[in-house]
Amino acid sequence: MPKIVDAEQRRAEIAKAAANAIVAHGIDDVTMVAIAKAAGMTTGAVTHYFADKDDVILAALRWADGAMQARTARALDEHDDVAAIILAALPHDEASRTEWLVWCVFYDRATRNPALMAEQRARDTDWQRMAVQVLSDMRGRGELDPSVDIEAEAHLAVALVDGIGFHAASDPASWPEEKQQRLVAQYLARLAPRS
Amino acid sequence: MPKIVDAEQRRAEIAKAAANAIVAHGIDDVTMVAIAKAAGMTTGAVTHYFADKDDVILAALRWADGAMQARTARALDEHDDVAAIILAALPHDEASRTEWLVWCVFYDRATRNPALMAEQRARDTDWQRMAVQVLSDMRGRGELDPSVDIEAEAHLAVALVDGIGFHAASDPASWPEEKQQRLVAQYLARLAPRS
Repeated sequence: MPKIVDAEQRRAEIAKAAANAIVAHGIDDVTMVAIAKAAGMTTGAVTHYFADKDDVILAALRWADGAMQARTARALDEHDDVAAIILAALPHDEASRTEWLVWCVFYDRATRNPALMAEQRARDTDWQRMAVQVLSDMRGRGELDPSVDIEAEAHLAVALVDGIGFHAASDPASWPEEKQQRLVAQYLARLAPRS
Repeated sequence: MPKIVDAEQRRAEIAKAAANAIVAHGIDDVTMVAIAKAAGMTTGAVTHYFADKDDVILAALRWADGAMQARTARALDEHDDVAAIILAALPHDEASRTEWLVWCVFYDRATRNPALMAEQRARDTDWQRMAVQVLSDMRGRGELDPSVDIEAEAHLAVALVDGIGFHAASDPASWPEEKQQRLVAQYLARLAPRS
């Protein structure tokens, strides 16, 4: 069924264009016309796939968070270096920075739209689960002090990574990769078994 | 010079109305007309004090962050309970939640406006300084492990509090005060001297 594949591809292209347009021009300047232009399509083509602006924004967030999760999951598969896994999730280039800034816009917008809030909660649950997995792997390798409660620690870790990520996405000059690395290392050192 | 006092009061009223309008309706629906309406003034009165939308948004952020800093400084004067000081800064009612959401909008917007970015950096420096003060007070009371580097720890503490604050402001139902308290306590426990 090539038509369905095309439709999904089309939707993904529009979502990506919307994410880039939100970050480049701001949410208040992002219209269906601007998104269509960024995607190289007619406005009619965009409105064929998405009902309204919030619908495109939802797709943009799904696209951004999907890219972020895929990259982090890949890092998780590739090695046991927890700092490297966290840094893969954090903003380190234009693409990852865009993903974080879409999240930043979404956090505010979700407060006025139940569908966006439901999506935000689902995504937060995904990240909590991923943090639990990373911490469980650390425990398995003997890298975690016995006093660390994995579920509780995962909440703290997600909040910390989000705090670093929002700062670094908004102001990369003040939050270069070395600063992100330093803070992540500083945090992880404190989880290590106390000898 | 009552006229100058009036002008400052007028600007503060508009800034507060703008902050509330941004959070209630979203940055894309906030026009000079909407802000004037929220402030109970004519659009002419608003444009008399502010050149454009970014100018009002800058004032809204200054108002929101000023309120946040004043509340935190008050908590810092009142007691030595660090958890209580941090919780005073975090979202715990409608007013503090509004302040955090204005920050959230600002983080994205500053990426496209150098004047807003300069303000964001100045405010970040204020918070870093305040965190250094809290940690120095802790050291003075013997509440800090000797291994803790205060300047470095302050960066981590600010990022963590921001991560918790953005989550709690956006989704207060999932981030009630008890959850914020628990994470703050969990973080602080790890700074205590290792016996």
